[in-house]
Amino acid sequence: MTDLPANITAVAHQIDAEARRRRFGHQGGVVWLTGLSGSGKSTIGVALEAHLFAAGMNAVLLDGDNLRHGLTSDLGFSPDDRRENLRRVGEVAALFAKSGAIVITALISPYSEDRARARKAANGQFIEVYVAADLDTCKARDPKGLYAKAISGEISEFTGVSAPYEVPTAPDLRIDTTITDLDACVAAIATEAKVRFIGDMSA
Amino acid sequence: MTDLPANITAVAHQIDAEARRRRFGHQGGVVWLTGLSGSGKSTIGVALEAHLFAAGMNAVLLDGDNLRHGLTSDLGFSPDDRRENLRRVGEVAALFAKSGAIVITALISPYSEDRARARKAANGQFIEVYVAADLDTCKARDPKGLYAKAISGEISEFTGVSAPYEVPTAPDLRIDTTITDLDACVAAIATEAKVRFIGDMSA
Repeated sequence: MTDLPANITAVAHQIDAEARRRRFGHQGGVVWLTGLSGSGKSTIGVALEAHLFAAGMNAVLLDGDNLRHGLTSDLGFSPDDRRENLRRVGEVAALFAKSGAIVITALISPYSEDRARARKAANGQFIEVYVAADLDTCKARDPKGLYAKAISGEISEFTGVSAPYEVPTAPDLRIDTTITDLDACVAAIATEAKVRFIGDMSA
Repeated sequence: MTDLPANITAVAHQIDAEARRRRFGHQGGVVWLTGLSGSGKSTIGVALEAHLFAAGMNAVLLDGDNLRHGLTSDLGFSPDDRRENLRRVGEVAALFAKSGAIVITALISPYSEDRARARKAANGQFIEVYVAADLDTCKARDPKGLYAKAISGEISEFTGVSAPYEVPTAPDLRIDTTITDLDACVAAIATEAKVRFIGDMSA
């Protein structure tokens, strides 16, 4: 760490990534789910956490909605607040990855720049999954009734209606939930996670 | 969760605390080290993480100095910024505890109110450890050269010199590092952590 603020000294841990890899049977890493509200991120996140955990992995889901109850409860939905929201979640995800967990994040995360920053925070131990669903489908699903409120103007700065979503141009994985069922979505992401984070454990 | 902000829906996880307890052999929880700069928090934190990890526990150290490199890099040392710093770390510690980890935090955390809030965030799965050392000893140790800078005025709002430290009135554990060596400090905290977070695993 070369860019610590003045008067802040880095503390070196005795337990390193290798010790944690041996303990858990996999490296730590981040599975970052991005997509519109209603695309299926939370549903996939919950199922993926259960799937990886059942497979013996130290899987942890961080859901953006739950985080707004605590860590990011002071933030709204302006561009600046969304940026800070994603910065914090990216940093926390990186802390979990460093602790040896496979952390799954489920947040709209509409800006490419913020997703790139989260990848950097995790030192590249990062799988960006674009949970794709066209806007009309998401509006029709409207699981939380938010599109209706956004269209009526009751909610402002809502992604896809009154705020932009920057489609990932080079995600590690793209899952179209309008044509792929939940089990298949989870299986595809789990396979990628195992390849990336378990790899060759005989090394 | 009854106090979620409007338009934020709580997401229910399939993997609960009990599943994680069975996996790791202990409950998740927080060991919160508080004390003056130079009292020995980081040294104890590093050694305690290694001790608990070697004992088979999923121990994770969050050091305040390291966090200021990322999660809390936007914050300074004013009373408001310290409060927000501790609020975030308390929330992150609670997330780790929820994931089944025994998270050790090492931050000065000078205000009783902020420590109480961190305890609440962790739903009481929390051991407050007062790492005690008198100010003169801490000044003499001055491991980072910060007391010298604070006394000369180069650093402002430095705990113990130009900012208050509210001594814990009812910590779960009080460790005096001027009379107790590192191994004994670690052993005392580890014993308390095992009693609290392992307990009776036959249940």
